[in-house]
Amino acid sequence: MEGGKKQPSVVLLNCSASMFGCRVRIALARKGIAYEEKPENLGAKSPLLLSSNPVHGKIPVLIVDGKPICESLVILEFIDEAFPCEPSLLPSDPFARAHDRFWASFVDSKIAPPAMKVWASPAPAVEAARGELVAAMRTLEAELGEKRYFGGDAVGFVDVALVPFTAWFATYERFGGFSVAEECPTLAAWAARCRDENECVAASLPETEFVYQFACGMRKHFGLDG
Amino acid sequence: MEGGKKQPSVVLLNCSASMFGCRVRIALARKGIAYEEKPENLGAKSPLLLSSNPVHGKIPVLIVDGKPICESLVILEFIDEAFPCEPSLLPSDPFARAHDRFWASFVDSKIAPPAMKVWASPAPAVEAARGELVAAMRTLEAELGEKRYFGGDAVGFVDVALVPFTAWFATYERFGGFSVAEECPTLAAWAARCRDENECVAASLPETEFVYQFACGMRKHFGLDG
Repeated sequence: MEGGKKQPSVVLLNCSASMFGCRVRIALARKGIAYEEKPENLGAKSPLLLSSNPVHGKIPVLIVDGKPICESLVILEFIDEAFPCEPSLLPSDPFARAHDRFWASFVDSKIAPPAMKVWASPAPAVEAARGELVAAMRTLEAELGEKRYFGGDAVGFVDVALVPFTAWFATYERFGGFSVAEECPTLAAWAARCRDENECVAASLPETEFVYQFACGMRKHFGLDG
Repeated sequence: MEGGKKQPSVVLLNCSASMFGCRVRIALARKGIAYEEKPENLGAKSPLLLSSNPVHGKIPVLIVDGKPICESLVILEFIDEAFPCEPSLLPSDPFARAHDRFWASFVDSKIAPPAMKVWASPAPAVEAARGELVAAMRTLEAELGEKRYFGGDAVGFVDVALVPFTAWFATYERFGGFSVAEECPTLAAWAARCRDENECVAASLPETEFVYQFACGMRKHFGLDG
């Protein structure tokens, strides 16, 4: 798949509101890789999704020349390796690569679970989830520090892993009763910067209101709202 | 760190019973990398551990020329990249690399949590944990199929990620009331093969009885046993 060769066929099985699917959209856009997105209805998964990810049955799945790759961070690494054109998502130095993988893993283990609980839990569990989420966001703020992006001067692996959650910030705020800008102003500024200065981000993120309506629908599905 | 250069100083902060620390031991042994292991008392973590992994405060941490790398799968990738001598843990083909990362991630998400619950839960929760663990083990058996190792003819990334759990099999069996060999004979045979045919595995795994006594001590600490 090096330059000069024909680009392979690239299909993304996705759900528009998914943070994890959005990571793949951004990575493909950032690399300039053309692809076809096939929307999945998670209430009635397609035979293609179930045969492409028989272990988890989850989106996103990237199908490249008929071969499926599952799990969003695995897909990001695949995109960097299979399409080695610039810009790279990961840096080249082994220490710096480990650093980025550590923080992307932090997003999955410390941001994603409380973020889900903030909007998808019964009321008594929301306060604890909000506390966990804000604490994890503050840890990320400390890591960002004075840098423009987690990747330094440009969007990198950690930015791509984290920025899709920003499309959910308004939903977390409405159900969690807090303000990201007040609690984590550095992270809020980074989120705006990612979107304002990077077409690959702006064009890939779902609309705030779409995400909120999706969350409302899921809450009904979970029996949280009448 | 290529051939010819002086090997950097390599220190592993570890706890002998840890599956995650054991992964790093095996990877270093497989690559023939000399290192110093510093045992940690998880009840009284060293200042070095807390300053090396301030985010999680967990072992294993690999410190290379004074620079810490945290999270076991991140460390395995680092070892492969920083010490590019053969044998590689990951294959070279991007699809095959994604495949290995997917299954290593499966071990972390589907084996580790129920495995912990089997020995560290109150009795009523054990049956469900055992069911989850055996189901995940069977999924791994299906993935292994007729291959000698997950890596094919030799121990690879997924083998290194999974094989440390085999040192805990007897502990899972005693607290969970089941037999790995009866439930998952293919996986049991793979576990024996890893140990019998690979000095890097045999020399890195803790003794079964040591692990069991460690688990008994943790159960007392958790208030599960008197």
